[in-house]
Amino acid sequence: MITIAVDCMGGDHGPKVTLPACTEFLDAHPEARLILVGLPDALQGFVHARATLVLASEVVTMDDPLEVALRRKKDSSMRVAVQQVKDGAAQAAVSAGNTGALMAISRYVLKTIDGIERPAIAGQIPNTTGGATTVLDLGANVDCTAEHLLQFAMMGSALVSVLQDKDAPSVGLLNIGEEAIKGNEVIKRAGELLRAAGSAGDLNFYGNVEGNDIFKGVVDIVVCDGFVGNVALKTSEGLASMIGGFLKAEFSKNVFTKLSALIAYPVLSALKKRFDHRRYNGAALLGLRGLVFKSHGSADVLAFGNALNRAYDAARNNLLDRVQVRIAKASPLLASPADAMA
Amino acid sequence: MITIAVDCMGGDHGPKVTLPACTEFLDAHPEARLILVGLPDALQGFVHARATLVLASEVVTMDDPLEVALRRKKDSSMRVAVQQVKDGAAQAAVSAGNTGALMAISRYVLKTIDGIERPAIAGQIPNTTGGATTVLDLGANVDCTAEHLLQFAMMGSALVSVLQDKDAPSVGLLNIGEEAIKGNEVIKRAGELLRAAGSAGDLNFYGNVEGNDIFKGVVDIVVCDGFVGNVALKTSEGLASMIGGFLKAEFSKNVFTKLSALIAYPVLSALKKRFDHRRYNGAALLGLRGLVFKSHGSADVLAFGNALNRAYDAARNNLLDRVQVRIAKASPLLASPADAMA
Repeated sequence: MITIAVDCMGGDHGPKVTLPACTEFLDAHPEARLILVGLPDALQGFVHARATLVLASEVVTMDDPLEVALRRKKDSSMRVAVQQVKDGAAQAAVSAGNTGALMAISRYVLKTIDGIERPAIAGQIPNTTGGATTVLDLGANVDCTAEHLLQFAMMGSALVSVLQDKDAPSVGLLNIGEEAIKGNEVIKRAGELLRAAGSAGDLNFYGNVEGNDIFKGVVDIVVCDGFVGNVALKTSEGLASMIGGFLKAEFSKNVFTKLSALIAYPVLSALKKRFDHRRYNGAALLGLRGLVFKSHGSADVLAFGNALNRAYDAARNNLLDRVQVRIAKASPLLASPADAMA
Repeated sequence: MITIAVDCMGGDHGPKVTLPACTEFLDAHPEARLILVGLPDALQGFVHARATLVLASEVVTMDDPLEVALRRKKDSSMRVAVQQVKDGAAQAAVSAGNTGALMAISRYVLKTIDGIERPAIAGQIPNTTGGATTVLDLGANVDCTAEHLLQFAMMGSALVSVLQDKDAPSVGLLNIGEEAIKGNEVIKRAGELLRAAGSAGDLNFYGNVEGNDIFKGVVDIVVCDGFVGNVALKTSEGLASMIGGFLKAEFSKNVFTKLSALIAYPVLSALKKRFDHRRYNGAALLGLRGLVFKSHGSADVLAFGNALNRAYDAARNNLLDRVQVRIAKASPLLASPADAMA
């Protein structure tokens, strides 16, 4: 039996979205249990045979500084949910709250696993193969060393091998050209480390990839620093929403275009479904001694449910152990100069 | 009378594209002259009253290392075209060749203007306002300091004020959050410099923007380092081509969808036109003592023609002088610690 702790207060919509998603999730997974964490008022009346309610007295808001989220709101629903994982009451936690706060709290409460200096956020982006490309880091780390990028590659490989059942998922290093000589110093050095890990059989390293390769599905996993990953993600979201908005406006221009939208409906609805970001909701916070998943703040019931599903699959398939095994195996490569001197 | 020097050998298609584009350009602009640079065989037979042919004996290929392009192929069509600008025979040069080589040759032949350490590549990305957002740097500089980013902001402002006739175009700093405290150290420091320039009236600084804001058209100019800019550009290209490919495949699935495509044709063709990257072809290499424009390597006649138009507009409107005036005005802010000590 797998138990997931849910921060019911997080996200733009809070309990209005999280509670119905929890009910649907429980109904769909007869083997799962949930721990719902929230303010007393918010959870009042929620009843399910496989749900436990845990009360919290505070909520981390979207614009709380890290300092406030971490040091002052010690009884926040977010923190209490993560604490359930630490205490062994749950195998994973899910929150749609403030990303920075969730990362800071998770890191503080759970700590990182041996060999990992910086946890990373791994998300999925749909690609032309019909599947999705896992990209990390999406914004947890704005300044990465080559060693961090290698750690991301190892953790991403474990994630994809667990969630997509692939033995040796391929890893690409996001760069501005396919040639090994391209990129800045960190990227060049990361390329060397990744090639070495590939040669040692610890990683299926493909080589450099470019921004467009994320959507081509050239590799299973794309590794980059959090600044670049976040810009790539948000740029894609911006373009997708621009194209969606354009189509909407053009198709509602006049009677004729409205009619043509009706006729083109099957294609337009397939397009909408294919690029529906709700289907890919639920980013993994990797590198911690416990599983934590981040839902998009704007998630609706369907999207939040997908984040719950991803956390459940990760817990069921023992993602945590598998990340640790990968990292331990690669530890000689991961030893940074600072460690080596210690 | 404005004269543009054209590297007729550059790009995936070479003279097959560049020569017809030159003819169309000359016919459309009775006040313009062109200097066509290329191998004798390629230019043979080209005749136009306002075209001069200049022969070169070599061609820089797409995979020539910089070293080869710069030191060995001294009589390449690319270099000879840029030399026309240096010699005052042309007011701007246009090439669809190897970007790195064009930047290196331009920098070597023309040198940078006072106050600019690194030239940048500025391109246009369509946005929801119906216009385009100018983004720089798109890949010339993979490691930027805060001072470089300020220089990019100044140069981008001059470019947009000239090409889009805007007095005080707004500048956003690409970051992973709107708050001033976000980002890595370089970005934070760049934010301070840009705010100072804004307060001094040298720049219309909007503040931080995120990846999606490029497409929202929140600001006229988005400033970022070349690594991030290149990833954002290529990620967008990848997504756009994925959506285009998806629509094509879905609409050609069966007789019904083919029919619906015919009926939805006005909207689909408006979509295609709106996102047609050929309309935005022609990136400016800014910060040099001469105007150089880079066309996409895959440009067709229409796209290459747009690059010629952009170079022509820039030359006609005295972009070079206006960039220099902006940079001179901001020189106290631009003085890097190294300069200050000199």
